[in-house]
Amino acid sequence: MSSHRIARPIGIFDSGIGGLTVAAAIRRSMPGERLLYFGDTEHFPYGERSPDAIRHYAIRITNFLLDQGCKAIVIACNTASAHASGPVELTAGDQVPVFNVIDPVATHIAETWPTGTIGVIGTKGTIASRVYVKAVAKRNKQVKVRSLATPLLAPMIEEGFYNNNISLAVIRSYLEHRNLAGMEALVLGCTHYPLIRDEVEKVVGSRVSVLDPPTIVAATIKQGLKDQGLLRRSRTPAGADKFFLSDMTDSFKSSAKRFFRKPMQLRELRMWDH
Amino acid sequence: MSSHRIARPIGIFDSGIGGLTVAAAIRRSMPGERLLYFGDTEHFPYGERSPDAIRHYAIRITNFLLDQGCKAIVIACNTASAHASGPVELTAGDQVPVFNVIDPVATHIAETWPTGTIGVIGTKGTIASRVYVKAVAKRNKQVKVRSLATPLLAPMIEEGFYNNNISLAVIRSYLEHRNLAGMEALVLGCTHYPLIRDEVEKVVGSRVSVLDPPTIVAATIKQGLKDQGLLRRSRTPAGADKFFLSDMTDSFKSSAKRFFRKPMQLRELRMWDH
Repeated sequence: MSSHRIARPIGIFDSGIGGLTVAAAIRRSMPGERLLYFGDTEHFPYGERSPDAIRHYAIRITNFLLDQGCKAIVIACNTASAHASGPVELTAGDQVPVFNVIDPVATHIAETWPTGTIGVIGTKGTIASRVYVKAVAKRNKQVKVRSLATPLLAPMIEEGFYNNNISLAVIRSYLEHRNLAGMEALVLGCTHYPLIRDEVEKVVGSRVSVLDPPTIVAATIKQGLKDQGLLRRSRTPAGADKFFLSDMTDSFKSSAKRFFRKPMQLRELRMWDH
Repeated sequence: MSSHRIARPIGIFDSGIGGLTVAAAIRRSMPGERLLYFGDTEHFPYGERSPDAIRHYAIRITNFLLDQGCKAIVIACNTASAHASGPVELTAGDQVPVFNVIDPVATHIAETWPTGTIGVIGTKGTIASRVYVKAVAKRNKQVKVRSLATPLLAPMIEEGFYNNNISLAVIRSYLEHRNLAGMEALVLGCTHYPLIRDEVEKVVGSRVSVLDPPTIVAATIKQGLKDQGLLRRSRTPAGADKFFLSDMTDSFKSSAKRFFRKPMQLRELRMWDH
């Protein structure tokens, strides 16, 4: 593999800023990589969009990331992973590996709880697609996957409404749903949810393992890049990370910092002008 | 005015299905009119979008409503009323009157509480634009308008999360904010909020009048159409109402009924194919 290609950025996209939790995990795990992040804030939240709409956006964004020379594409959004993984892979072609946030977690579950009962919470789109159920069943039919749509959590987190009595009440009311009874582990199936991990752990108690997809996904990406000779092993990146939002608002700007946990510069890239 | 023109539909648009509360009030108030409703569910919620994005969508939708022969345009969305009233009026031209959901309420306040203190709750976009503050001040500088962004309420209602302990706790936590201290009336400054009116009244108590913008707006539209000779006085409409959504999901379909409170048929009209 040419060193030129290895130095290219990893392209990451999400419906908004939630995917920054995945970007942050990649940054921690692969310090030599530079990131090119695209947040489709114009269409946030994808959980409200139809599968057709999501595929349309995902293909357009993938083409943008390829035009920018990205060496790999990460679909850092559960809803887009559920509905658009195939189209994105077709768009990226053979030379550019595509990673999503579902498959690594499904593999982890199938290997760690081969006969267990696993709960998944996520947006309406993610849960209705049954993507976790199918992805785990493909790997191990013994695992029971129980899922529940928790559509209020992402807007709640987006608004900074967490670590207080109300957020705890909302989380509790969701997690006490009978769909999730008897689970041994719980997948936080939306990139926003790592920010309420502590509260979720408080509600489910110590007998339920709360899985953090960004960490699991970053480990899979690292291994995948290594296998294809695309991992840059330096301790420092070849250039600065870049962050684009399709619609810039003060609210997204101020939330972004909480998700990436590092200083960053956001730029606007309006899709509707193109 | 030609009877042909009077028989044309009233065009109504909103960021999603919330504007159906305005459509329902028009239906109740003007039984001879037929409605053509456009819900821009592809971009819901407008409260998350930038003013530029909202203006872009509003102009595109207005052109669609004009192409369909609408005799009047109603901006049934507070955020779009705040950011796009001027551009929509320019697009509609002199022949087609444009109504928004802010001005009728501002006039009502200035006349009813000429020296009062009025609270307004709405999306981040509506509140940040200070549109109610400015609209009331233009009419009467004695009125004190105190406003508060309550961004979690619209998604909460959209998810059917109301009339329960959690929604009451969320509403209470917002309405106890010091911004709203001393208010004599409270404007539900988002088309979703009529659905939580009972809960809001429970929290603020009987000393605060809770204003219902859809009813006030419908009365203004009726008078405006009458003044321009555009009101159709029949007891039954000249044709069926039509409802378009820019992105159709099951969730919007099932919520729509709660907002319009009548049977209705929704059609999808994808803007991104145009």
